[in-house]
Amino acid sequence: MSSLKVPASVPDPYEDAEQLKKAFKGWGTNEDLIIQILAHRNAAQRKLIRDSYAAAYGEDLLKDLDSELTSDFQRVVLLWTLSPAERDAYLVNEATKRLTASNWVIMETACTRSSDDLFKARQAYHARYKKSLEEDVAYHTSGDFRKLLVPLITAFRYEGDEVNMTLARKEANILHEKISDKAYNDEEIIRIISTRSKAQLSATFNHYNDHHGHEIIKDLEADDGDEYLKLLRAAIECLKTPEKYFEKVLRLAIKKLGTDEWDLTRVVATRAEVDMERIKEEYHRRNSVTLDRAIAADTSGDYEKMLLALIGHGDA
Amino acid sequence: MSSLKVPASVPDPYEDAEQLKKAFKGWGTNEDLIIQILAHRNAAQRKLIRDSYAAAYGEDLLKDLDSELTSDFQRVVLLWTLSPAERDAYLVNEATKRLTASNWVIMETACTRSSDDLFKARQAYHARYKKSLEEDVAYHTSGDFRKLLVPLITAFRYEGDEVNMTLARKEANILHEKISDKAYNDEEIIRIISTRSKAQLSATFNHYNDHHGHEIIKDLEADDGDEYLKLLRAAIECLKTPEKYFEKVLRLAIKKLGTDEWDLTRVVATRAEVDMERIKEEYHRRNSVTLDRAIAADTSGDYEKMLLALIGHGDA
Repeated sequence: MSSLKVPASVPDPYEDAEQLKKAFKGWGTNEDLIIQILAHRNAAQRKLIRDSYAAAYGEDLLKDLDSELTSDFQRVVLLWTLSPAERDAYLVNEATKRLTASNWVIMETACTRSSDDLFKARQAYHARYKKSLEEDVAYHTSGDFRKLLVPLITAFRYEGDEVNMTLARKEANILHEKISDKAYNDEEIIRIISTRSKAQLSATFNHYNDHHGHEIIKDLEADDGDEYLKLLRAAIECLKTPEKYFEKVLRLAIKKLGTDEWDLTRVVATRAEVDMERIKEEYHRRNSVTLDRAIAADTSGDYEKMLLALIGHGDA
Repeated sequence: MSSLKVPASVPDPYEDAEQLKKAFKGWGTNEDLIIQILAHRNAAQRKLIRDSYAAAYGEDLLKDLDSELTSDFQRVVLLWTLSPAERDAYLVNEATKRLTASNWVIMETACTRSSDDLFKARQAYHARYKKSLEEDVAYHTSGDFRKLLVPLITAFRYEGDEVNMTLARKEANILHEKISDKAYNDEEIIRIISTRSKAQLSATFNHYNDHHGHEIIKDLEADDGDEYLKLLRAAIECLKTPEKYFEKVLRLAIKKLGTDEWDLTRVVATRAEVDMERIKEEYHRRNSVTLDRAIAADTSGDYEKMLLALIGHGDA
């Protein structure tokens, strides 16, 4: 479900490193060459290119990209070139330093990564920031947001398919009871959402839908001014149908006056190698226009080219 | 600081497996031979013996030990033979099924293991119980106990030596303020205790002691009937000076009328390969009798022999 297009015959990583070095040289940078290489290599291949670059030139490819490129193009190339674990660590760290809107990035990272990938992000956080990811999240949040985000980001969910139907019924009823009482920050809601496996939660949400007349997401649509409630609803959407959540983030980012490049770049860089094909289908279905065309209409230059390459537009 | 005595020349694991198979055969079990082998092999060696046993006889060594042995001796041999990660997973799972006193086992596991070892226990929990460790802990606890235990057991603390002294001062003051207000379940206390690195916490507790006139542990000694407060205090002791915590558990287990084998077995099986030498020093210092002698006086038979072998009494 990755949208990445990798050529049938991938050059030796030393050759890629050499081409990138050339792209930086002389008068002006060769952005097309950078896109041609980096946007068509998977995570393991990009890692080899970084290692080869360091071995050949004694320099850090990321630092050179950082100094050669600018603006939105710089950000998407840098985020993309990082390993998925380093990228998640970077995004969460950045989020802890921004305003409350960035609670969404923390929630999104916690709820849409596999258990192993989320743990790898926590390891990468130790290595890069000399702190734990959860201590920064806990320190920079408070109240209900902390109560929800810390257990989400520290979860190591079971990933098997086993489902306990008795438990699913019981916990669907607990969720319904608390939501009916508008007790959205109740510790039982948070416990269920933050600890159960995605397969188990799916059974719980199905039971909720079947026996209480509405989807759980619908029952959480009241009180649209409540930021905590919106975050809780988005967390459930991420756990249940991540492609729908990401479609919505992309739709709002593109629709916005001037486009929200922060969201657009993040979603493309983090999902290209995971489930971008599903997100593209969902986007097309929901907006009657392909994501390629929507991005092409709203962005320009090298930034546009890089995004389109990552979502699989054109050939490798 | 391990108390384990491994012979200079360790037999081939197939040979050990064969000897164990012999120990089970015939009329009666050869307990001495079991002790002679298993109590003198480290975790990696025991793993090889289990693998060799399975390969040679198509049977699970743990199941055979379970059916051949009985009572306290059985429990200590089984716990010891498990890998540290499986053992921690087993102990926490058992604790979630018992009464509230077992909250201590969950806290102890969370606060005295290294970050990697705690994570490995969570992986072992997935493999063995087809659930996450934290979903069972969260489900089987409630109120303040849940608020404290879930973040402790899901922590992945940074393990470097770096200390932020400004933060240590700030958080020592927060702890002092909340403790003075008797707000022991305050979310800031839980955040600090459950997310900061042990090095950082050590600086925080030192500042507390230097600027507020008492050790933090002393300030938590009021209200001895409050089970939550006792657990919080023990968590701080585990994070600060685990050898003192374990000395106390052993002292109380041995002093008790009839001895508390549940605690005694657990502490010996989980610490022998980690810091038992430090615990023995602490025990001797505090009780004016060596741990060897105290255990010998209070236990008997194969159980006694196994415990003494694990704490390094006699030769390998």
